[in-house]
Amino acid sequence: MSFATSPAHTSPAESESESESDSESDSGSAPTPLTLARCRALVRPTLVEAVGRLHPWPGEMAAFSLGWCGPGGTPDPGASQGKGVRQALAVLGAEAVGASGETAVPAAVAVELVHVFSLLHDDIMDGDETRRQRETVWKAYGTGPAVLAGDALLAIALQTLSETPGARVGAAVRHLSGTLTRLVRGQAEDLLFADRPWTGPGAVRPEAYRSMAEDKTGSLLGCAAGLGALLGGAPAGTVAALDRAGRHLGVAFQAVDDLLGIWGDPARTGKPVHGDLRQRRKTYPVIAALTSDGLPSRELAALLASPLPLDGPTALRAATLAEAAGGRAATLAEARRHLDSAHACLRGVPLAPRTVREIEGLLDFLLHRNV
Amino acid sequence: MSFATSPAHTSPAESESESESDSESDSGSAPTPLTLARCRALVRPTLVEAVGRLHPWPGEMAAFSLGWCGPGGTPDPGASQGKGVRQALAVLGAEAVGASGETAVPAAVAVELVHVFSLLHDDIMDGDETRRQRETVWKAYGTGPAVLAGDALLAIALQTLSETPGARVGAAVRHLSGTLTRLVRGQAEDLLFADRPWTGPGAVRPEAYRSMAEDKTGSLLGCAAGLGALLGGAPAGTVAALDRAGRHLGVAFQAVDDLLGIWGDPARTGKPVHGDLRQRRKTYPVIAALTSDGLPSRELAALLASPLPLDGPTALRAATLAEAAGGRAATLAEARRHLDSAHACLRGVPLAPRTVREIEGLLDFLLHRNV
Repeated sequence: MSFATSPAHTSPAESESESESDSESDSGSAPTPLTLARCRALVRPTLVEAVGRLHPWPGEMAAFSLGWCGPGGTPDPGASQGKGVRQALAVLGAEAVGASGETAVPAAVAVELVHVFSLLHDDIMDGDETRRQRETVWKAYGTGPAVLAGDALLAIALQTLSETPGARVGAAVRHLSGTLTRLVRGQAEDLLFADRPWTGPGAVRPEAYRSMAEDKTGSLLGCAAGLGALLGGAPAGTVAALDRAGRHLGVAFQAVDDLLGIWGDPARTGKPVHGDLRQRRKTYPVIAALTSDGLPSRELAALLASPLPLDGPTALRAATLAEAAGGRAATLAEARRHLDSAHACLRGVPLAPRTVREIEGLLDFLLHRNV
Repeated sequence: MSFATSPAHTSPAESESESESDSESDSGSAPTPLTLARCRALVRPTLVEAVGRLHPWPGEMAAFSLGWCGPGGTPDPGASQGKGVRQALAVLGAEAVGASGETAVPAAVAVELVHVFSLLHDDIMDGDETRRQRETVWKAYGTGPAVLAGDALLAIALQTLSETPGARVGAAVRHLSGTLTRLVRGQAEDLLFADRPWTGPGAVRPEAYRSMAEDKTGSLLGCAAGLGALLGGAPAGTVAALDRAGRHLGVAFQAVDDLLGIWGDPARTGKPVHGDLRQRRKTYPVIAALTSDGLPSRELAALLASPLPLDGPTALRAATLAEAAGGRAATLAEARRHLDSAHACLRGVPLAPRTVREIEGLLDFLLHRNV
């Protein structure tokens, strides 16, 4: 399947791998992995400087969570440092409004650090023990120190953004702190979903899930692109359009993630087959399937509500039922709809065409995973 | 004993009680409890509005941590809501530079919320189960939700400050985010002190403890007064002087707290007698005592380093040794020196004399506890 809607985009990368790929080509803009690498290189010195301001102990935990070292500060050349999607969106947001990428560096550092902060604290709340094939910070250092490390990351994110020269710093910090409030709201909803019933009046509806995904995943992606444009001197309408594009990207990204969490190839995702079903996670495909009428939906509800473990053939049966009840198709449609909306946001305001193609390439790259 | 250095200040309140007291009188400025109550009343509507922006769940935990309700959002009229020292310092900071207290309200809300955020996350890190005679948030709601509630408090603190009208918002947010980095540094040091030896090259020295106390306790008190002055339109030198005064207050406050933690009257402090010794906390009196030469210092070091519990007569013996080794006198001198420095900071810049008397009254009020 393909989500591609960008006419300039011809051959999306199909893998989640971090490696540079030349499988993408584009008339007049760099392939996405090169764009990501260029943005990371631009942002890196300021990111290193920001982390270097911290007390050595939370500084080490911050470096660990960024994939710069192993636990205890040991070298860990195999650690993933992430694609840097948020920092890239900030840089591209500035370039899209005709400013230099350098203008957006404080925003890029801030959104990247807020992202790592949120992963770190969310891992504590969710009890997740591994991330990117390594122990999470709370697992490696303890819960208390991990709380401190998250706070430290947030503190230097704000400090870096607040030291941006120029008159736009107030608006920039307003933008970021509003995003923080939305991140908290999204995480609160997500945590509360676990205790809600599968069916009936208290069940999670698709629109509630979408709203959670927009807050939890979309708001920071939108903030990244919008903040870059803001520091680049863009008018409010352009900032808002880039922000909206990022939010749609977040919802689409979450939908694809949910598809991979049930039907993804474990060899590519690194996660167990039917993993989200085994954990009885209330993700979009299941929520959408349960809102339909018919036998598959009712049998799926009964399976999910039973106290028995969901593994092996039972998990496969649940996946088959979720698909038969329309959950997979609805999630694909949800992802497509929000990717289309993101593209429409980008095309509704005057932006540098070359950069728009780079952003669109990035959107497609992120969503063309193995589903 | 008395720390009073303000000539206008005649009869300091001696108790930690939250109740209004008319034991203070002053020529031309309100008694401290009335000042605190006036500032709380001024700040309260904006504080309520800020908390009201949160998702209901972290909002409830925020209200609980502010003493506005019991766990589960039940009414709890007996809960302490705190004196509101930081919000008062922000309001007085603005008034000291000739601005209205209203000018400082966003700063007052921000520092109060950052204070509650830091208590909440510190309670997780320190494993403290009670605060102000109630369960801590992590104890009442669980660790994960408490992490989220702290993040929520910080998010709305920043959002409120960043929405301050006028051109000073950038400098204000810069001030607050630098303070956050210092708070993290102070908490990191404090946590690491626990694992350091009592004597020898790795022992905590008095100057390291002072630096920790300045970061952990002084930086937010200084930020409060400085931010109020900043939003009130003060020049940088005045902001810096108020900031320094608050930092000295923090160190003095910590010293008094440490005295109370060993020699305080349990009936007044609400804490067990010799509590900090029983818990083998590395507080100033012990650190100072261990830096002296002589038998009491060596016997104290041996007691602290032994694996035996420090209770009853052993704790009393440790307290006696700490006093004999000069720890109590050194801590009193430390508190006096920093209170004097705070007063000197306030008198070194042009400020409204009436407000300076109110701030000095507040300083003395906070430090004249039962030691």
